[in-house]
Amino acid sequence: MRAVVMYAPGDVRVDETERPTIVEPTDAILKLAATCICGSDLWPYRGTDAVDHQPMGHEYVGVVEEIGSAVQNVQVGDFVVGSFFASDNTCDICLAGYQTHCVHRQPGALPGAQAEYARIPLADGTLVATPGTPDPDLIPSLLAASDVLGTGWFAAVAAEVGPGKTVAVVGDGAVGLLGVLAAKQLGADRIIAMSRHADRQALARELGATDIVEERGDAGVARIKELTGGLGAHSTIEAVGTQESMMQAIRATRAGGHVGYVGVSHNVALPGQELFFSGVHLHGGPAPVRRFLPELIKLIWDRQIDPGTVFDLTLPIEQAAEGYRAMDERRATKVLLTF
Amino acid sequence: MRAVVMYAPGDVRVDETERPTIVEPTDAILKLAATCICGSDLWPYRGTDAVDHQPMGHEYVGVVEEIGSAVQNVQVGDFVVGSFFASDNTCDICLAGYQTHCVHRQPGALPGAQAEYARIPLADGTLVATPGTPDPDLIPSLLAASDVLGTGWFAAVAAEVGPGKTVAVVGDGAVGLLGVLAAKQLGADRIIAMSRHADRQALARELGATDIVEERGDAGVARIKELTGGLGAHSTIEAVGTQESMMQAIRATRAGGHVGYVGVSHNVALPGQELFFSGVHLHGGPAPVRRFLPELIKLIWDRQIDPGTVFDLTLPIEQAAEGYRAMDERRATKVLLTF
Repeated sequence: MRAVVMYAPGDVRVDETERPTIVEPTDAILKLAATCICGSDLWPYRGTDAVDHQPMGHEYVGVVEEIGSAVQNVQVGDFVVGSFFASDNTCDICLAGYQTHCVHRQPGALPGAQAEYARIPLADGTLVATPGTPDPDLIPSLLAASDVLGTGWFAAVAAEVGPGKTVAVVGDGAVGLLGVLAAKQLGADRIIAMSRHADRQALARELGATDIVEERGDAGVARIKELTGGLGAHSTIEAVGTQESMMQAIRATRAGGHVGYVGVSHNVALPGQELFFSGVHLHGGPAPVRRFLPELIKLIWDRQIDPGTVFDLTLPIEQAAEGYRAMDERRATKVLLTF
Repeated sequence: MRAVVMYAPGDVRVDETERPTIVEPTDAILKLAATCICGSDLWPYRGTDAVDHQPMGHEYVGVVEEIGSAVQNVQVGDFVVGSFFASDNTCDICLAGYQTHCVHRQPGALPGAQAEYARIPLADGTLVATPGTPDPDLIPSLLAASDVLGTGWFAAVAAEVGPGKTVAVVGDGAVGLLGVLAAKQLGADRIIAMSRHADRQALARELGATDIVEERGDAGVARIKELTGGLGAHSTIEAVGTQESMMQAIRATRAGGHVGYVGVSHNVALPGQELFFSGVHLHGGPAPVRRFLPELIKLIWDRQIDPGTVFDLTLPIEQAAEGYRAMDERRATKVLLTF
């Protein structure tokens, strides 16, 4: 099968590899309908995270091709959505809604999801079937649910977004943009997207942003304060993961407000005293997408949301390297790969 | 009047000073019934925080002696409880329950509460009157409500303590001990106090602790995990404020659980990546004691709780220096000063 492998930073190739097979009785094998490149794939691509001949990808939708003997919740032929960690969905941590921290957590797709086929561990706890075979135009949105929508949604939930609240969104990548969508769905009064790119500003407005702040850092914080009577946002979504973005999020939030952070932290050290006196709530981490999948699939199926709009470039998998380049150079927000 | 002044680290004296007078129409002057020494007073006493001829004290109960022309909610003769910040209790931040971050926040007692009299700014928003003149044996408990009980209570609320939950408490000072009391009142199933001092262990058990863990740091975390099926506590109260105690609290908490931290952060830097992958909720800061005062005063008045037991040494104010020494040397948990 064709599969994307990152040989080294900046060196992405499409190899012909072995199709995965059932290893554990709880596994399922999927034939993927589509896959995509994640903003987090840029960390190794840029050399920030180590990488060496790594099969890539952790976002997927597809059809169940084969199931292990213990699998009961999905059947061969089902169209399913999973996410970037596999979980049993029965342990205490899963039952509390934190499936990405499942005590039996495993990688979400092996050897990687940027491939024609993938093995999904703990299929019963990980995969959620759609009501039927989706119309082709729904596939990008279902694929978005696999990570970026689920992650943006979790950020909004972690930030306690809701009616009557003003939400600030730090980060205008796919996750931040879908955080805007989530904030709108969750009933926020006002949604301030922080972005300096005209195309992303336009998409943010389309997804529900009521205000755009172009400034960053302290100037961005000052602008958020200006827009909120000097107090700061009630809820802030952080979708970048750097020291600057975390401090921007914390400082943009009023005392007693909530920061939901989902940008994978890179070289971040939070100053204890400032955090203490900020009085904010801080919650985040790897999003438990599985918690939200049934709800998100229903919203997509019923065509109430269209998160697939974050894909602004679609390429055949053979051109994966170009997809990585386009995202690295910010020519594309998010790249969908087809087979 | 007699007032405690810290001339320099380790140098505490009782001076004869001017009685405060009304400055703003929103002020009240209190004749204090009792005051006390706070664990946080040890930071300057030990030289960790700078100090130079500082009037000390921020915990108080007493009788209203005089009110400014704009004060309406308390009357001369009322017995009242306040806390360590004055707040208007009408701004959006106060209304959200975060009075310690009030947009008009001022010091809670001027020039300091370890004195016979104090000026309380924003008296209407800051002071809560008791139902009548308290029996003398209630005064220590009402004084505890002014800070350590309110702070321990906030920590428990911030840690989302409740029925069905296991709570770990890091710190066996007065705040940690009253965090135990709060956890019990809030219905926790199991309360694990982390303490290596026999007297404090005994008091923790009396206040509601079901388990004691003597180990600290990684060993303490491992013990909490052992006691919680490998998962960690649902809710952890952090009442120290050091790097070690914060990490102990975060690591002792299960993914999706809550850390309520109220130890004033000193030289703490939280590692972003570890925090991210921990999946915990983090909330804390200077406790909005004012939010809880009506409820706490009622519980004390009705003799449902007796937080005054944390005072294990009572001295006349003239012996304040001995009180500081006793707390510094951990011979006393908390010292009450009388006039």
